[in-house]
Formats: sequence, structure tokens, C-alpha cells
Amino acid sequence: MRNIKITIQYQGTQYNGWQTQRKSPKIKTIQSVIEKALFRITHEKVSLIGSGRTDSGAHALGQVANFKTNSPMSLGYLMRALNAILPEDIAIRRIQEVDLDFHARFDAQSKIYRYCVLNGLEKSVFNRDYYYKCLYTLDLDLMRKEAQALIGKRDFKSFQAADKKEHSSVRSIKILTIAKKGNFINFDIEAEGFLYKMVRNIVGTLLDIGRGRLEKGSMKRILNRKNRKFAGSTVPAKGLTLLKVKY
Amino acid sequence: MRNIKITIQYQGTQYNGWQTQRKSPKIKTIQSVIEKALFRITHEKVSLIGSGRTDSGAHALGQVANFKTNSPMSLGYLMRALNAILPEDIAIRRIQEVDLDFHARFDAQSKIYRYCVLNGLEKSVFNRDYYYKCLYTLDLDLMRKEAQALIGKRDFKSFQAADKKEHSSVRSIKILTIAKKGNFINFDIEAEGFLYKMVRNIVGTLLDIGRGRLEKGSMKRILNRKNRKFAGSTVPAKGLTLLKVKY
Repeated sequence: MRNIKITIQYQGTQYNGWQTQRKSPKIKTIQSVIEKALFRITHEKVSLIGSGRTDSGAHALGQVANFKTNSPMSLGYLMRALNAILPEDIAIRRIQEVDLDFHARFDAQSKIYRYCVLNGLEKSVFNRDYYYKCLYTLDLDLMRKEAQALIGKRDFKSFQAADKKEHSSVRSIKILTIAKKGNFINFDIEAEGFLYKMVRNIVGTLLDIGRGRLEKGSMKRILNRKNRKFAGSTVPAKGLTLLKVKY
Repeated sequence: MRNIKITIQYQGTQYNGWQTQRKSPKIKTIQSVIEKALFRITHEKVSLIGSGRTDSGAHALGQVANFKTNSPMSLGYLMRALNAILPEDIAIRRIQEVDLDFHARFDAQSKIYRYCVLNGLEKSVFNRDYYYKCLYTLDLDLMRKEAQALIGKRDFKSFQAADKKEHSSVRSIKILTIAKKGNFINFDIEAEGFLYKMVRNIVGTLLDIGRGRLEKGSMKRILNRKNRKFAGSTVPAKGLTLLKVKY
């Protein structure tokens, strides 16, 4: 038995997120498409363990997953075969053999997500699947100040999707940067783990603060309320990309 | 009456080409979508004259069109209103008032098209709507030599779409360059005018030569045959972008 770790890039537009749902196994997910490709290559029913879910429509530059196989194929061959079978919107970027006890989800130390906002009237025709457009003038300095309240170990209950409840909503954000690049604003967030829709709820709230819809000091107040209904809007998944998983 | 010239960028993936067909006026084309937006803004039934058609699924960085209007709106307002109404995959990049006799099609001096090929096994997940993938090893030097036969005033009957016959198939190619950039190969072709599918048939034939499917000297021979059936494959529209129209 071998344990194989793969690093995956995908454009999520055409998929119902990373993870196959037990209730609806036929819906097209990144995971299911890669598992099918692995079956075609190895003739084994492989179960692919991702570092975590990504939302329906969200993208990845460096999603990580692992699977176990008895196949003796070389890693180079396996990667070429996977890329040949997988559609053009999914690519395997790296393949490694790892210890049998490596687990893509449990062993992940932290993840970095980027949320991309196009701020202004201008359009970016050729990137339109990768950003959310915000027309309002934004006070970036205020947003950066307010974001400080989120750094460290916090209860992010207010930023958890209303319909998904995890056992604990305490998470640790290590880094949150807001960088302007031309008309684009990138929100990069690194944390040990994320709640469902947490990044999109945080960015939506920061935009609401930046445009003056929520007042100064809101971020701290919302966090303390521990209730989703006090946070700002949820921005769409298409602006979200999983940049990297650290082990 | 004013005559307005606009420069347009679009991702053609979701459209049935630039031009509305008289036989099927309800099919979604770039032209029809812009005309509808102009109607919403000016309340005039505007007829938009493009520099020429682009194929279904092909893109444009700098398509040019003009229309006549009695509206007194400022150009800045008109451009902002258009961009606000138009979908994210169409953008107006420039707007100018021109002489009443300016005609986007008749006055075009030349056009530059780019055809983009991804050569190799690697994938480019985030650009996948903008290239055609060719897995074969290509002899670029041979392709460049063979392409020389196309430069100048020639009868391009062999490269005309089989189902569309123009009055004359004589056209003038000024420049044809083949440039490698990483795994991408860009075919840039400048001509006074193009026949329907001419660029895609030329690039398909050059690829057939480059991979050895057609022998050395084929380009000249195919040109002399003046019959579409001797040329190579037609490559898909998604790799094609209208870069610029010169006046």
C-alpha cells in the first residue's frame, strides 16, 4: 500500500465544490471527478481525502489531497495520466509519495485563502470568474484596522454559515492582509482552519465597514455577539481561491 | 446626428459571435447585446456597425464599431452607462465622436488577430477559454518558413470556410509571426481583411505542418490548389482573439 499526496489547481466555476456529499453522490464535485479519473487509471476505488472543502464555485491554486493505492505506477506516469484524463479546469501540479499515516485534512497546519474584489466601475473581461465586483468607495485603512479584531484565537460564530453548525466555532486567524493592486483588492487570510463560509462572511463584513454601511468598531462588536445575523453580507464564492495548504 | 466610435473588449465564450444574423435575430450575439444596451440608454433603435464579424466563441481585445445617434449625452456618461448595463464579459474600453462618414467596416485599414496554442501536456486552468491545446511536438522554424508563402496579396480560397463563399477570396496578409512564450505559441496575423475562418484554417494547417502530418512545401501547394479540401484542420474558435483594428 502506498500513500500519495497531490497538489491540485482548479477553476471551480463548473463544480459543486470540492467535496462529494453523501446525500447526493451524483452531483459533480472536484473530488468525484478526480476519484473517477483515478479509478480509470488504477482500477481501484480510491477515496480521496482533501485538506478541506472549498465552496461551490470557489477555486484553488494549491488544494492538497491524499489517497491510498496498491498501484505500482511511477509518480510521473500517474500525474501525466491524471492530467490527460482530467478536464482542462482541473490540473495536478505536484505528486509525492508520503508516509502511510499522512492525512491531508488532519495534518494540515494552516490554510491561506485569497478573496479578490474588483473595486470600481472598470471591468476585467478576461478574469470575470475570479473576482467579486464592489462599486463603492472603500476606506481600506479603516478596514485594516477593524480586521485586527479578528487576529488570534477567536469564536467566529458570527461568521459561520447560518445553515452549518460545527461542534466548535473557535478558530485561529494568523494573518489577514488587505492589499490593493490596481483596481483589485486582495484579502489574504491564513488560519489553522476555517468555518463554512467564514472567509466570505468576513470579507462581506469588511466591505460593509469600508463603504460605511457598518460603523467603526463593528468588527469587534459583531465578533462578541456570536450570532451570524449581526455580521455583514456574504460575498459570492467566485472571488474565493484556496492559495495554499501548509503542513 | 452624431457618429460614435467605440472600442470593445469581450470574452466570446457565451455568444454566437459578433454579428446578428438576419435569419435568426433572437440568437445572442455581442452586437445584439450592445444594441439592446444602447436602446436602454438612448431610447433609440441604434444599428451598430462592427469592423467585421468574429466567430462564435472567439474573443476581442480591441473590436471597433460605430453607431449614429441623436442623443446629446456626454461621451463619458454614455460609456459609464454602457459598461454598467453590459454583462461582465463585454466592456467598452474607449469612446470617441467621429466624422459622420466614418464607417467601422469600410474604413478599417487592417486587423490583427492572435491565435493562441498551448503546446504540451501542461494545463493552464485559469486561461482555459483562451487557448487551443496541441500535444504534438512542433517544428516552429519549419512553420515560420512555410508561413512565408502566405505573406502578400494571395488567393486564400483554400483557407476559406467551405460553407461561406465571398465574391473574391483574394486577401493581403501583411505580417504573420509565430512567437513562443513558455508553453504558449501565439500566431499573430495582420491583414487588410480576412475570409470567414481564414485564421483558424491557416493556424490548423501550420500545426499540421509543424507536427509532420503535412510535408514540407505544403503551404505553397495548398495555396495554389485553391480548394479548401487540401488545407489542414480548422482549429477551435476559443483560441482566437481580435487584438486590434487599424484605421
